[in-house]
Amino acid sequence: MNLLLLEDKDFVSPTRVRLEGRRLRHVQEVHRAAVGDDLVVGRLGGNLGRGRVLALDDALELEVTLDQAPPPKLPLTLVLALPRPKVLNRVLAAAASLGVARIHLVNAWKVEKSYWKSPRMAEENLLLQRVLGLEQARDTVLPSLELHRLLRPFAEEVLPSLAAGTTALVAHPGVPVPCPRDLTGPVTLAIGPEGGFLPQEVELLGRAGLTPVNLGSRILRVETAVAALVGRLF
Amino acid sequence: MNLLLLEDKDFVSPTRVRLEGRRLRHVQEVHRAAVGDDLVVGRLGGNLGRGRVLALDDALELEVTLDQAPPPKLPLTLVLALPRPKVLNRVLAAAASLGVARIHLVNAWKVEKSYWKSPRMAEENLLLQRVLGLEQARDTVLPSLELHRLLRPFAEEVLPSLAAGTTALVAHPGVPVPCPRDLTGPVTLAIGPEGGFLPQEVELLGRAGLTPVNLGSRILRVETAVAALVGRLF
Repeated sequence: MNLLLLEDKDFVSPTRVRLEGRRLRHVQEVHRAAVGDDLVVGRLGGNLGRGRVLALDDALELEVTLDQAPPPKLPLTLVLALPRPKVLNRVLAAAASLGVARIHLVNAWKVEKSYWKSPRMAEENLLLQRVLGLEQARDTVLPSLELHRLLRPFAEEVLPSLAAGTTALVAHPGVPVPCPRDLTGPVTLAIGPEGGFLPQEVELLGRAGLTPVNLGSRILRVETAVAALVGRLF
Repeated sequence: MNLLLLEDKDFVSPTRVRLEGRRLRHVQEVHRAAVGDDLVVGRLGGNLGRGRVLALDDALELEVTLDQAPPPKLPLTLVLALPRPKVLNRVLAAAASLGVARIHLVNAWKVEKSYWKSPRMAEENLLLQRVLGLEQARDTVLPSLELHRLLRPFAEEVLPSLAAGTTALVAHPGVPVPCPRDLTGPVTLAIGPEGGFLPQEVELLGRAGLTPVNLGSRILRVETAVAALVGRLF
Protein backbone atom coordinates (compact mmCIF):
# COMPACT_ATOMS: atom_id res chain seq x y z
CA MET A 1 0.00 0.00 0.00
CA ASN A 2 1.74 3.14 -1.25
CA LEU A 3 -1.31 5.32 -0.71
CA LEU A 4 -4.05 5.31 1.90
CA LEU A 5 -7.24 5.70 -0.10
CA LEU A 6 -9.96 7.69 1.69
CA GLU A 7 -13.67 7.49 0.98
CA ASP A 8 -16.29 10.16 1.59
CA LYS A 9 -17.63 8.27 4.60
CA ASP A 10 -14.19 8.41 6.28
CA PHE A 11 -14.33 12.21 6.57
CA VAL A 12 -15.50 13.50 9.95
CA SER A 13 -14.74 17.09 8.89
CA PRO A 14 -13.47 18.58 5.59
CA THR A 15 -9.82 17.94 6.59
CA ARG A 16 -10.09 15.13 9.10
CA VAL A 17 -10.65 11.39 8.62
CA ARG A 18 -11.19 8.46 10.95
CA LEU A 19 -10.36 4.94 9.72
CA GLU A 20 -10.84 1.45 11.12
CA GLY A 21 -10.53 -2.08 9.71
CA ARG A 22 -8.14 -3.04 6.92
CA ARG A 23 -6.49 0.36 6.55
CA LEU A 24 -6.02 0.84 10.30
CA ARG A 25 -4.38 -2.58 10.59
CA HIS A 26 -2.13 -1.92 7.60
CA VAL A 27 -0.91 1.39 9.02
CA GLN A 28 -0.28 -0.25 12.40
CA GLU A 29 1.30 -3.48 11.24
CA VAL A 30 3.05 -2.67 7.97
CA HIS A 31 3.73 1.08 8.06
CA ARG A 32 4.22 0.90 11.86
CA ALA A 33 3.24 4.56 11.91
CA ALA A 34 3.13 6.74 15.03
CA VAL A 35 1.33 9.93 16.01
CA GLY A 36 2.90 12.84 14.14
CA ASP A 37 3.93 10.79 11.08
CA ASP A 38 2.88 11.87 7.60
CA LEU A 39 1.28 9.28 5.32
CA VAL A 40 0.58 9.51 1.59
CA VAL A 41 -3.20 9.68 1.19
CA GLY A 42 -5.71 10.25 -1.58
CA ARG A 43 -9.44 10.77 -1.77
CA LEU A 44 -11.29 8.28 -3.94
CA GLY A 45 -12.02 10.15 -7.16
CA GLY A 46 -10.17 13.22 -5.88
CA ASN A 47 -6.72 14.57 -5.08
CA LEU A 48 -3.61 13.07 -3.54
CA GLY A 49 -1.85 14.58 -0.56
CA ARG A 50 -0.58 13.95 2.94
CA GLY A 51 -2.26 12.87 6.16
CA ARG A 52 -0.70 13.66 9.54
CA VAL A 53 -1.42 10.98 12.14
CA LEU A 54 -3.39 12.56 15.03
CA ALA A 55 -4.36 9.36 16.81
CA LEU A 56 -3.65 5.68 16.29
CA ASP A 57 -5.29 3.16 18.59
CA ASP A 58 -8.83 1.83 18.08
CA ALA A 59 -8.97 4.03 15.02
CA LEU A 60 -6.60 6.02 12.84
CA GLU A 61 -7.26 9.74 12.79
CA LEU A 62 -5.58 11.92 10.20
CA GLU A 63 -5.47 15.62 9.38
CA VAL A 64 -5.28 15.64 5.59
CA THR A 65 -4.10 18.08 2.92
CA LEU A 66 -5.15 17.05 -0.58
CA ASP A 67 -3.39 19.26 -3.11
CA GLN A 68 -2.06 17.08 -5.95
CA ALA A 69 -3.94 15.76 -8.97
CA PRO A 70 -3.87 11.98 -9.44
CA PRO A 71 -1.87 10.58 -12.38
CA PRO A 72 -3.71 10.55 -15.72
CA LYS A 73 -5.57 7.38 -16.72
CA LEU A 74 -4.62 5.47 -19.85
CA PRO A 75 -7.22 5.99 -22.59
CA LEU A 76 -7.79 2.24 -22.59
CA THR A 77 -11.00 0.23 -22.48
CA LEU A 78 -10.18 -3.36 -21.61
CA VAL A 79 -12.67 -6.07 -22.63
CA LEU A 80 -11.67 -9.19 -20.73
CA ALA A 81 -13.18 -12.63 -20.92
CA LEU A 82 -13.96 -13.38 -17.28
CA PRO A 83 -10.85 -15.11 -15.86
CA ARG A 84 -10.74 -17.87 -13.27
CA PRO A 85 -11.64 -16.49 -9.81
CA LYS A 86 -8.06 -16.91 -8.57
CA VAL A 87 -6.79 -14.85 -11.51
CA LEU A 88 -9.61 -12.29 -11.38
CA ASN A 89 -8.31 -10.56 -8.25
CA ARG A 90 -4.81 -10.18 -9.62
CA VAL A 91 -5.92 -8.92 -13.00
CA LEU A 92 -8.31 -6.31 -11.57
CA ALA A 93 -5.62 -4.99 -9.22
CA ALA A 94 -2.98 -5.01 -11.97
CA ALA A 95 -5.26 -3.22 -14.45
CA ALA A 96 -6.17 -0.59 -11.86
CA SER A 97 -2.51 -0.08 -10.93
CA LEU A 98 -1.57 0.37 -14.60
CA GLY A 99 -4.17 3.13 -15.01
CA VAL A 100 -6.67 1.33 -17.25
CA ALA A 101 -9.72 3.61 -17.49
CA ARG A 102 -12.52 1.12 -18.14
CA ILE A 103 -12.91 -2.64 -17.71
CA HIS A 104 -15.66 -4.82 -19.17
CA LEU A 105 -15.75 -8.44 -18.02
CA VAL A 106 -17.52 -10.53 -20.65
CA ASN A 107 -18.55 -14.10 -21.22
CA ALA A 108 -17.00 -16.40 -23.85
CA TRP A 109 -17.40 -20.04 -24.80
CA LYS A 110 -14.33 -21.06 -22.80
CA VAL A 111 -15.35 -19.14 -19.67
CA GLU A 112 -16.66 -21.74 -17.23
CA LYS A 113 -20.16 -20.91 -16.00
CA SER A 114 -19.05 -21.40 -12.40
CA TYR A 115 -16.70 -18.39 -12.65
CA TRP A 116 -19.72 -16.07 -12.71
CA LYS A 117 -20.95 -17.55 -9.42
CA SER A 118 -17.67 -17.23 -7.54
CA PRO A 119 -17.77 -15.31 -4.21
CA ARG A 120 -15.02 -13.16 -5.74
CA MET A 121 -17.66 -11.72 -8.08
CA ALA A 122 -19.33 -10.01 -5.11
CA GLU A 123 -19.51 -6.26 -5.62
CA GLU A 124 -17.40 -5.56 -2.49
CA ASN A 125 -14.58 -7.76 -3.79
CA LEU A 126 -14.66 -6.28 -7.29
CA LEU A 127 -14.33 -2.86 -5.65
CA LEU A 128 -11.66 -3.94 -3.15
CA GLN A 129 -9.37 -5.38 -5.83
CA ARG A 130 -9.49 -2.17 -7.84
CA VAL A 131 -8.89 -0.14 -4.67
CA LEU A 132 -5.83 -2.30 -3.90
CA GLY A 133 -4.51 -1.51 -7.39
CA LEU A 134 -5.02 2.22 -6.84
CA GLU A 135 -3.32 2.03 -3.43
CA GLN A 136 -0.36 0.27 -5.05
CA ALA A 137 0.01 2.82 -7.86
CA ARG A 138 -0.87 6.00 -5.93
CA ASP A 139 -3.96 6.73 -7.97
CA THR A 140 -7.41 7.74 -6.74
CA VAL A 141 -9.61 7.23 -9.79
CA LEU A 142 -11.32 3.84 -9.98
CA PRO A 143 -11.44 2.17 -13.36
CA SER A 144 -15.10 1.64 -14.23
CA LEU A 145 -16.20 -1.99 -14.24
CA GLU A 146 -19.14 -3.56 -16.06
CA LEU A 147 -20.15 -7.21 -16.27
CA HIS A 148 -21.75 -8.76 -19.34
CA ARG A 149 -23.04 -12.30 -18.82
CA LEU A 150 -23.81 -12.74 -22.54
CA LEU A 151 -21.20 -12.05 -25.20
CA ARG A 152 -23.45 -11.61 -28.23
CA PRO A 153 -25.66 -8.77 -26.99
CA PHE A 154 -22.57 -7.06 -25.57
CA ALA A 155 -20.74 -7.37 -28.90
CA GLU A 156 -23.74 -6.27 -30.94
CA GLU A 157 -25.21 -3.54 -28.77
CA VAL A 158 -22.49 -2.16 -26.48
CA LEU A 159 -19.10 -2.79 -28.08
CA PRO A 160 -19.62 -0.91 -31.38
CA SER A 161 -20.02 2.40 -29.56
CA LEU A 162 -17.08 1.63 -27.21
CA ALA A 163 -14.87 0.83 -30.21
CA ALA A 164 -15.95 3.77 -32.39
CA GLY A 165 -13.20 6.39 -32.72
CA THR A 166 -10.62 4.18 -30.95
CA THR A 167 -7.92 1.82 -32.13
CA ALA A 168 -9.96 -1.32 -31.51
CA LEU A 169 -8.14 -4.64 -31.20
CA VAL A 170 -8.76 -8.21 -30.17
CA ALA A 171 -5.73 -10.28 -29.18
CA HIS A 172 -5.86 -13.56 -31.11
CA PRO A 173 -2.99 -16.00 -31.68
CA GLY A 174 -2.11 -16.97 -35.21
CA VAL A 175 -3.43 -13.96 -37.12
CA PRO A 176 -0.81 -12.22 -39.30
CA VAL A 177 -1.24 -8.65 -37.99
CA PRO A 178 1.08 -7.88 -35.06
CA CYS A 179 -0.23 -5.77 -32.21
CA PRO A 180 0.58 -2.08 -32.84
CA ARG A 181 2.69 -0.05 -30.43
CA ASP A 182 3.21 3.49 -29.12
CA LEU A 183 -0.32 4.70 -29.72
CA THR A 184 -1.38 8.06 -28.39
CA GLY A 185 -5.14 7.96 -28.95
CA PRO A 186 -7.78 5.86 -27.23
CA VAL A 187 -7.64 2.08 -27.50
CA THR A 188 -10.23 -0.67 -27.04
CA LEU A 189 -8.58 -4.02 -26.44
CA ALA A 190 -10.27 -7.41 -26.02
CA ILE A 191 -8.42 -10.35 -24.45
CA GLY A 192 -9.89 -13.84 -24.54
CA PRO A 193 -10.11 -16.55 -21.88
CA GLU A 194 -7.48 -19.21 -21.23
CA GLY A 195 -7.68 -21.22 -24.45
CA GLY A 196 -8.68 -18.11 -26.41
CA PHE A 197 -11.82 -16.83 -28.11
CA LEU A 198 -13.42 -19.20 -30.65
CA PRO A 199 -13.01 -18.11 -34.31
CA GLN A 200 -16.72 -17.23 -34.43
CA GLU A 201 -16.29 -15.07 -31.30
CA VAL A 202 -13.40 -13.23 -32.98
CA GLU A 203 -15.72 -12.70 -36.00
CA LEU A 204 -18.43 -11.34 -33.72
CA LEU A 205 -15.95 -8.91 -32.16
CA GLY A 206 -14.69 -8.06 -35.64
CA ARG A 207 -18.19 -7.00 -36.68
CA ALA A 208 -18.14 -4.61 -33.71
CA GLY A 209 -15.01 -3.00 -35.19
CA LEU A 210 -12.17 -4.91 -33.49
CA THR A 211 -9.15 -5.96 -35.56
CA PRO A 212 -7.57 -9.29 -34.61
CA VAL A 213 -3.88 -8.86 -33.78
CA ASN A 214 -1.29 -11.32 -32.55
CA LEU A 215 0.95 -10.80 -29.55
CA GLY A 216 3.68 -13.22 -30.58
CA SER A 217 3.87 -16.94 -30.03
CA ARG A 218 4.12 -16.87 -26.24
CA ILE A 219 0.94 -17.61 -24.30
CA LEU A 220 0.92 -15.31 -21.28
CA ARG A 221 -1.19 -15.34 -18.14
CA VAL A 222 -3.86 -12.71 -18.48
CA GLU A 223 -2.40 -10.35 -15.85
CA THR A 224 1.03 -10.62 -17.49
CA ALA A 225 -0.52 -10.06 -20.93
CA VAL A 226 -2.43 -6.97 -19.77
CA ALA A 227 0.73 -5.37 -18.34
CA ALA A 228 2.86 -6.26 -21.39
CA LEU A 229 0.17 -4.86 -23.71
CA VAL A 230 -0.12 -1.63 -21.75
CA GLY A 231 3.67 -1.26 -21.93
CA ARG A 232 3.57 -1.89 -25.66
CA LEU A 233 0.52 0.16 -26.63
CA PHE A 234 1.21 3.41 -24.76
CA MET B 1 0.06 -25.53 -18.54
CA ASN B 2 0.14 -25.02 -22.30
CA LEU B 3 3.16 -27.26 -22.78
CA LEU B 4 4.30 -30.43 -21.05
CA LEU B 5 7.99 -29.84 -20.40
CA LEU B 6 10.12 -32.98 -20.60
CA GLU B 7 13.47 -33.49 -18.95
CA ASP B 8 16.26 -35.84 -20.01
CA LYS B 9 15.46 -38.22 -17.17
CA ASP B 10 11.87 -38.63 -18.45
CA PHE B 11 13.08 -40.31 -21.68
CA VAL B 12 12.98 -44.10 -21.61
CA SER B 13 13.95 -44.22 -25.29
CA PRO B 14 14.81 -41.48 -27.82
CA THR B 15 11.11 -40.95 -28.68
CA ARG B 16 9.33 -42.21 -25.58
CA VAL B 17 8.83 -40.63 -22.16
CA ARG B 18 7.33 -41.78 -18.88
CA LEU B 19 6.03 -39.16 -16.40
CA GLU B 20 4.72 -39.27 -12.84
CA GLY B 21 3.95 -36.68 -10.17
CA ARG B 22 2.87 -33.11 -10.95
CA ARG B 23 2.74 -33.48 -14.72
CA LEU B 24 0.84 -36.79 -14.59
CA ARG B 25 -1.76 -35.29 -12.25
CA HIS B 26 -2.13 -32.19 -14.41
CA VAL B 27 -2.73 -34.22 -17.57
CA GLN B 28 -5.25 -36.41 -15.73
CA GLU B 29 -7.09 -33.71 -13.80
CA VAL B 30 -6.87 -30.58 -15.94
CA HIS B 31 -6.28 -31.79 -19.50
CA ARG B 32 -8.42 -34.89 -18.80
CA ALA B 33 -6.48 -36.57 -21.58
CA ALA B 34 -7.06 -40.12 -22.82
CA VAL B 35 -4.96 -42.72 -24.64
CA GLY B 36 -4.54 -41.62 -28.25
CA ASP B 37 -4.70 -37.87 -27.52
CA ASP B 38 -1.95 -35.56 -28.70
CA LEU B 39 -0.41 -33.13 -26.18
CA VAL B 40 1.89 -30.18 -26.82
CA VAL B 41 5.29 -31.12 -25.40
CA GLY B 42 8.80 -29.69 -25.35
CA ARG B 43 12.19 -30.91 -24.22
CA LEU B 44 13.91 -28.70 -21.66
CA GLY B 45 16.54 -26.80 -23.61
CA GLY B 46 15.40 -28.44 -26.87
CA ASN B 47 12.58 -28.51 -29.40
CA LEU B 48 8.80 -28.33 -29.13
CA GLY B 49 6.48 -30.92 -30.64
CA ARG B 50 3.68 -33.35 -29.94
CA GLY B 51 3.32 -36.31 -27.60
CA ARG B 52 0.78 -39.06 -28.32
CA VAL B 53 -0.61 -40.60 -25.12
CA LEU B 54 0.26 -44.32 -25.08
CA ALA B 55 -0.72 -45.05 -21.49
CA LEU B 56 -2.24 -43.03 -18.68
CA ASP B 57 -2.68 -44.67 -15.28
CA ASP B 58 0.10 -44.87 -12.67
CA ALA B 59 2.24 -43.02 -15.15
CA LEU B 60 1.85 -41.07 -18.37
CA GLU B 61 3.62 -42.60 -21.36
CA LEU B 62 4.04 -40.57 -24.52
CA GLU B 63 5.48 -41.17 -27.98
CA VAL B 64 7.00 -37.77 -28.84
CA THR B 65 7.97 -35.95 -32.03
CA LEU B 66 10.05 -32.84 -31.37
CA ASP B 67 10.40 -30.86 -34.58
CA GLN B 68 9.84 -27.16 -33.82
CA ALA B 69 12.33 -24.65 -32.46
CA PRO B 70 11.26 -22.85 -29.26
CA PRO B 71 10.43 -19.13 -29.50
CA PRO B 72 13.44 -16.79 -29.35
CA LYS B 73 14.43 -15.36 -25.96
CA LEU B 74 14.39 -11.63 -25.33
CA PRO B 75 17.95 -10.22 -25.20
CA LEU B 76 17.22 -9.07 -21.66
CA THR B 77 19.24 -9.46 -18.48
CA LEU B 78 17.02 -8.65 -15.51
CA VAL B 79 18.69 -7.58 -12.26
CA LEU B 80 16.02 -7.78 -9.57
CA ALA B 81 16.28 -6.86 -5.95
CA LEU B 82 15.09 -10.03 -4.21
CA PRO B 83 11.32 -9.64 -3.78
CA ARG B 84 9.20 -10.88 -0.89
CA PRO B 85 8.88 -14.69 -1.00
CA LYS B 86 5.21 -14.47 -1.96
CA VAL B 87 6.07 -12.25 -4.90
CA LEU B 88 9.20 -14.18 -5.87
CA ASN B 89 7.30 -17.14 -7.34
CA ARG B 90 5.08 -14.95 -9.47
CA VAL B 91 7.89 -12.80 -10.79
CA LEU B 92 10.09 -15.77 -11.71
CA ALA B 93 7.22 -17.44 -13.57
CA ALA B 94 6.21 -14.19 -15.28
CA ALA B 95 9.79 -13.40 -16.35
CA ALA B 96 10.25 -16.92 -17.73
CA SER B 97 6.93 -16.73 -19.58
CA LEU B 98 7.90 -13.39 -21.14
CA GLY B 99 11.14 -14.86 -22.50
CA VAL B 100 13.65 -13.06 -20.28
CA ALA B 101 17.05 -14.64 -20.99
CA ARG B 102 18.89 -14.06 -17.72
CA ILE B 103 17.83 -13.20 -14.17
CA HIS B 104 20.09 -12.01 -11.35
CA LEU B 105 18.50 -11.73 -7.90
CA VAL B 106 20.47 -9.25 -5.83
CA ASN B 107 20.46 -7.78 -2.36
CA ALA B 108 19.56 -4.16 -1.57
CA TRP B 109 19.16 -2.11 1.60
CA LYS B 110 15.39 -2.53 1.57
CA VAL B 111 15.48 -6.29 0.95
CA GLU B 112 14.69 -7.91 4.30
CA LYS B 113 17.36 -10.40 5.35
CA SER B 114 14.68 -13.02 6.03
CA TYR B 115 13.78 -13.14 2.33
CA TRP B 116 17.08 -14.88 1.59
CA LYS B 117 16.22 -17.63 4.08
CA SER B 118 12.74 -18.35 2.76
CA PRO B 119 11.95 -21.96 1.79
CA ARG B 120 11.00 -20.54 -1.60
CA MET B 121 14.69 -19.85 -2.18
CA ALA B 122 15.34 -23.61 -2.35
CA GLU B 123 16.90 -24.58 -5.65
CA GLU B 124 13.98 -26.89 -6.55
CA ASN B 125 11.49 -24.06 -6.12
CA LEU B 126 13.55 -21.57 -8.11
CA LEU B 127 13.66 -24.14 -10.91
CA LEU B 128 9.96 -25.08 -10.62
CA GLN B 129 8.76 -21.48 -10.92
CA ARG B 130 10.77 -20.93 -14.07
CA VAL B 131 9.51 -24.24 -15.48
CA LEU B 132 5.91 -23.14 -14.77
CA GLY B 133 6.60 -19.96 -16.74
CA LEU B 134 7.97 -21.95 -19.68
CA GLU B 135 4.98 -24.33 -19.56
CA GLN B 136 2.66 -21.31 -19.63
CA ALA B 137 4.39 -19.67 -22.60
CA ARG B 138 5.31 -22.80 -24.63
CA ASP B 139 9.02 -22.27 -24.32
CA THR B 140 11.71 -24.81 -23.46
CA VAL B 141 14.73 -22.66 -22.66
CA LEU B 142 15.16 -21.81 -18.97
CA PRO B 143 16.21 -18.28 -18.13
CA SER B 144 19.50 -18.51 -16.25
CA LEU B 145 19.27 -17.53 -12.60
CA GLU B 146 22.04 -16.30 -10.30
CA LEU B 147 21.82 -15.12 -6.68
CA HIS B 148 24.02 -12.37 -5.26
CA ARG B 149 23.76 -11.97 -1.50
CA LEU B 150 25.88 -8.80 -1.52
CA LEU B 151 25.08 -5.89 -3.81
CA ARG B 152 28.43 -4.11 -3.83
CA PRO B 153 30.66 -6.94 -5.09
CA PHE B 154 27.98 -7.80 -7.65
CA ALA B 155 27.80 -4.20 -8.85
CA GLU B 156 31.57 -3.77 -8.92
CA GLU B 157 32.74 -7.11 -10.22
CA VAL B 158 29.87 -8.77 -12.15
CA LEU B 159 27.53 -6.05 -13.42
CA PRO B 160 30.02 -4.01 -15.51
CA SER B 161 30.60 -6.94 -17.85
CA LEU B 162 26.87 -7.76 -17.99
CA ALA B 163 26.07 -4.16 -18.87
CA ALA B 164 28.87 -3.65 -21.41
CA GLY B 165 27.55 -3.44 -24.98
CA THR B 166 23.91 -3.36 -23.82
CA THR B 167 21.39 -0.60 -23.17
CA ALA B 168 21.83 -0.66 -19.40
CA LEU B 169 19.09 0.85 -17.23
CA VAL B 170 18.02 1.06 -13.62
CA ALA B 171 14.38 1.91 -12.95
CA HIS B 172 14.29 4.75 -10.41
CA PRO B 173 11.37 7.06 -9.64
CA GLY B 174 11.86 10.79 -9.90
CA VAL B 175 14.76 10.93 -12.35
CA PRO B 176 14.08 13.04 -15.47
CA VAL B 177 15.01 10.46 -18.15
CA PRO B 178 12.02 8.36 -19.22
CA CYS B 179 12.54 4.67 -19.92
CA PRO B 180 13.32 4.16 -23.64
CA ARG B 181 11.15 1.98 -25.86
CA ASP B 182 11.27 -0.28 -28.92
CA LEU B 183 14.89 -1.33 -28.54
CA THR B 184 16.27 -4.04 -30.77
CA GLY B 185 19.62 -4.72 -29.13
CA PRO B 186 20.42 -6.31 -25.78
CA VAL B 187 19.21 -4.66 -22.58
CA THR B 188 20.30 -4.89 -18.95
CA LEU B 189 17.57 -3.68 -16.61
CA ALA B 190 17.73 -3.36 -12.83
CA ILE B 191 14.55 -3.08 -10.75
CA GLY B 192 14.71 -2.21 -7.07
CA PRO B 193 12.87 -3.61 -4.05
CA GLU B 194 9.53 -2.36 -2.74
CA GLY B 195 10.47 1.12 -1.56
CA GLY B 196 13.17 1.38 -4.23
CA PHE B 197 16.94 1.40 -4.33
CA LEU B 198 18.66 3.97 -2.08
CA PRO B 199 20.27 6.91 -3.93
CA GLN B 200 23.71 5.52 -3.11
CA GLU B 201 22.66 2.14 -4.54
CA VAL B 202 21.57 3.86 -7.76
CA GLU B 203 25.00 5.56 -7.84
CA LEU B 204 26.72 2.21 -7.36
CA LEU B 205 24.72 0.75 -10.27
CA GLY B 206 25.46 3.90 -12.27
CA ARG B 207 29.21 3.31 -11.87
CA ALA B 208 28.61 -0.15 -13.38
CA GLY B 209 27.17 1.55 -16.47
CA LEU B 210 23.41 1.67 -15.69
CA THR B 211 21.45 4.83 -16.52
CA PRO B 212 18.63 5.72 -14.10
CA VAL B 213 15.30 6.00 -15.94
CA ASN B 214 11.80 6.64 -14.67
CA LEU B 215 8.77 4.57 -15.52
CA GLY B 216 6.16 7.22 -14.82
CA SER B 217 4.58 8.15 -11.52
CA ARG B 218 2.72 4.88 -10.93
CA ILE B 219 4.31 2.43 -8.51
CA LEU B 220 3.74 -1.05 -9.89
CA ARG B 221 4.13 -4.44 -8.29
CA VAL B 222 7.35 -5.97 -9.48
CA GLU B 223 5.72 -8.67 -11.64
CA THR B 224 3.49 -6.03 -13.26
CA ALA B 225 6.48 -3.72 -13.77
CA VAL B 226 8.55 -6.47 -15.39
CA ALA B 227 5.78 -7.28 -17.88
CA ALA B 228 5.05 -3.62 -18.67
CA LEU B 229 8.77 -2.95 -19.18
CA VAL B 230 9.19 -5.93 -21.48
CA GLY B 231 6.20 -4.70 -23.52
CA ARG B 232 7.73 -1.24 -23.67
CA LEU B 233 11.36 -2.10 -24.32
CA PHE B 234 11.00 -4.71 -27.09
